Amino acid sequence: MTDFAATRAAFHLPDGVTYLDGNSLGPMPVRAAERVAAMMRDEWAEMLITGWNRAGWYVQPRRVGDRIARLIGAGPGEVVMGDTLSIKVFQALSAALTLNPGRRVILSDSGNFPSDLYVAEGLARTVGAELRVVAPEAVAGAIDADLAVLMLTEVDYRTGRRHDMAALTAQAHAAGALTVWDLAHSAGAIDVDLRGADADFAVGCTYKYLNGGPGAPAFIWVHPRHAEAARPCLQGWMGHAAPFAFDPDYTPAPGIERMRVGTPPVIALAALETALEVWDGVGMAELRARSVALTEAFIAGVEAACPGVTLYSPRDPAARGSQVGFRHPQAYAVMQALIAQGVIGDFRAPDVLRFGFAPLYNGMEDVARAVATLSDILRTGSWDRPEYHRRAAVT
Amino acid sequence: MTDFAATRAAFHLPDGVTYLDGNSLGPMPVRAAERVAAMMRDEWAEMLITGWNRAGWYVQPRRVGDRIARLIGAGPGEVVMGDTLSIKVFQALSAALTLNPGRRVILSDSGNFPSDLYVAEGLARTVGAELRVVAPEAVAGAIDADLAVLMLTEVDYRTGRRHDMAALTAQAHAAGALTVWDLAHSAGAIDVDLRGADADFAVGCTYKYLNGGPGAPAFIWVHPRHAEAARPCLQGWMGHAAPFAFDPDYTPAPGIERMRVGTPPVIALAALETALEVWDGVGMAELRARSVALTEAFIAGVEAACPGVTLYSPRDPAARGSQVGFRHPQAYAVMQALIAQGVIGDFRAPDVLRFGFAPLYNGMEDVARAVATLSDILRTGSWDRPEYHRRAAVT
Repeated sequence: MTDFAATRAAFHLPDGVTYLDGNSLGPMPVRAAERVAAMMRDEWAEMLITGWNRAGWYVQPRRVGDRIARLIGAGPGEVVMGDTLSIKVFQALSAALTLNPGRRVILSDSGNFPSDLYVAEGLARTVGAELRVVAPEAVAGAIDADLAVLMLTEVDYRTGRRHDMAALTAQAHAAGALTVWDLAHSAGAIDVDLRGADADFAVGCTYKYLNGGPGAPAFIWVHPRHAEAARPCLQGWMGHAAPFAFDPDYTPAPGIERMRVGTPPVIALAALETALEVWDGVGMAELRARSVALTEAFIAGVEAACPGVTLYSPRDPAARGSQVGFRHPQAYAVMQALIAQGVIGDFRAPDVLRFGFAPLYNGMEDVARAVATLSDILRTGSWDRPEYHRRAAVT
Repeated sequence: MTDFAATRAAFHLPDGVTYLDGNSLGPMPVRAAERVAAMMRDEWAEMLITGWNRAGWYVQPRRVGDRIARLIGAGPGEVVMGDTLSIKVFQALSAALTLNPGRRVILSDSGNFPSDLYVAEGLARTVGAELRVVAPEAVAGAIDADLAVLMLTEVDYRTGRRHDMAALTAQAHAAGALTVWDLAHSAGAIDVDLRGADADFAVGCTYKYLNGGPGAPAFIWVHPRHAEAARPCLQGWMGHAAPFAFDPDYTPAPGIERMRVGTPPVIALAALETALEVWDGVGMAELRARSVALTEAFIAGVEAACPGVTLYSPRDPAARGSQVGFRHPQAYAVMQALIAQGVIGDFRAPDVLRFGFAPLYNGMEDVARAVATLSDILRTGSWDRPEYHRRAAVT
């Protein structure tokens, strides 16, 4: 049995705050500050360049990747860390295109995170491929014999809608296409099973439900059947078979290591590694059950007590990730009012109140407080103050 | 007058160590540990998602870039941080190719860092361009009317040979080509003048002479004449004109901001920012003079006292960066013996002893000790012990 009281206690949650924005930036693990301080003091400062061997910096991207593998239904040695999610989307997509050389169409949906679409558009323009973007519900109908790669984010960053990874992957494979899955809103939030779904490539970030800190490095997974054939367009020295031979010609490293590019972000990986240790002993089925319970209770509570909002997320929990969105015409101001009262969710343009439920540290007490606070704000109209309408640079 | 005693005191240098490997990984600034701890405690832990505005995380990549701009002869607002050097090489090279659409040849040299060549090879294969690699001394003669982009590392990572940036750039421009300069071994080491040399693109890392820590983020500079026309092939949401509008279509941000891709590495940038504060008040001409004095003294000392080595770096300081290489048939074991006695340089295959002199914290006392220790090791043959021949994973 997972001890969710213990996992909650592993995070620093500011006094008076109900944090429902872990789908944007996870809170700091209590041990992260000491771990990073120790890394800087004992490794960087004292070992200097020898830290690459003595402190294991060189193998850290895969060691950390192994911790993520378990959370997403992948095997050991199949995941490696580095760069940002956008870079990893580019790598996965370019490798997938190369593995399907007779075809040039990339299919995605309008619920994908914009950066994924920008990356795909940039790659398509560069290599002469075609990016087709359809509505999320039209994806299945748009898979045809032209398709090279189906590139989707499993859980929609706004609506929380969850794609059926296994079904869409099977359909893509039947049509002769490969799949690239973005797990930004899945990893650490729901029960992902990449091997079970027979996916081809997957990527994700670690600063949301995995709590690695702002700008924490991304991960990439390649199904072992492709790992020795995938040629990343972005080929850097850390992905070379022998980085320190300084060979002028590139020979890809075996397996997933070839997806490394430049020097890994060692300080950030130290924070992330600590954050992933919190997952030791967490059962992913239990995590999913807890997530469903939290989002179901939140939807029921808001619909019972909060006037003027309409559910934006799928009502069926099987079709939903671990977040809930509600629409309100004054969503921006309403969210500022919530934040002012210590309930932190976020606003997504144009009119969405978004609440993420991280089962690792959110509980029913967070649901109750968020419902009560939102209800009060909407019933009294207290959101309608000038300071709540003022837009910040980053919203 | 630059106070080099003060800049040396700003770094944590382990007891008993003479550190001549700052061209591989710079030492930790004394204030970095506290700054990172404060960032984690006061910003990530307490501000959570609001840190993007309240702590200025969103603008940090350019604020830090401005600090680097002064060190490389660029103007404010012309440099932005992010990703790794290999990724930035890819961005600069792909943008430069796009700006010179009638031509497909990339010219580089065999003294370039292998990762730059791997990146160029991967890009060339992907877009149907041609990578030509010549010897460093043959570069000038290989610039012809086919050339799209001349891509060079200013200072050779092994030999320390410095290219004449202004002359080669002028020659490339006369032939109708653009230039991409990698400043990995230049920034913080020598007096770089990008504007004076009329370069087009420049990139660099920050974990060497800029002391940002292992895996610290890279930088990219684009000459303002190209900044509004350059279209990065890697286009991500942080380089969008309005990242938080979540527009499905990509519109590049004005100027250098379009070279941002994914979420910036906030923790790493905090360490780097502290490291760059040490440069306040450092005159780059004085830095260069100190560098020349250190390397000249080291060459003279080694040649006078150390048998069996031959100078690998250019003898003329004007043709050299801030490092010195010597060849020795047993360079690996000799370097291990040096390290065992507290003089840390590094080995580069097949037979090079490499010593970096970072004028910010290295002084004549380091030169004297390194010469005396190397002399003793070579005169006594004390390098020939089994433990010094054993190869580590990362050398």
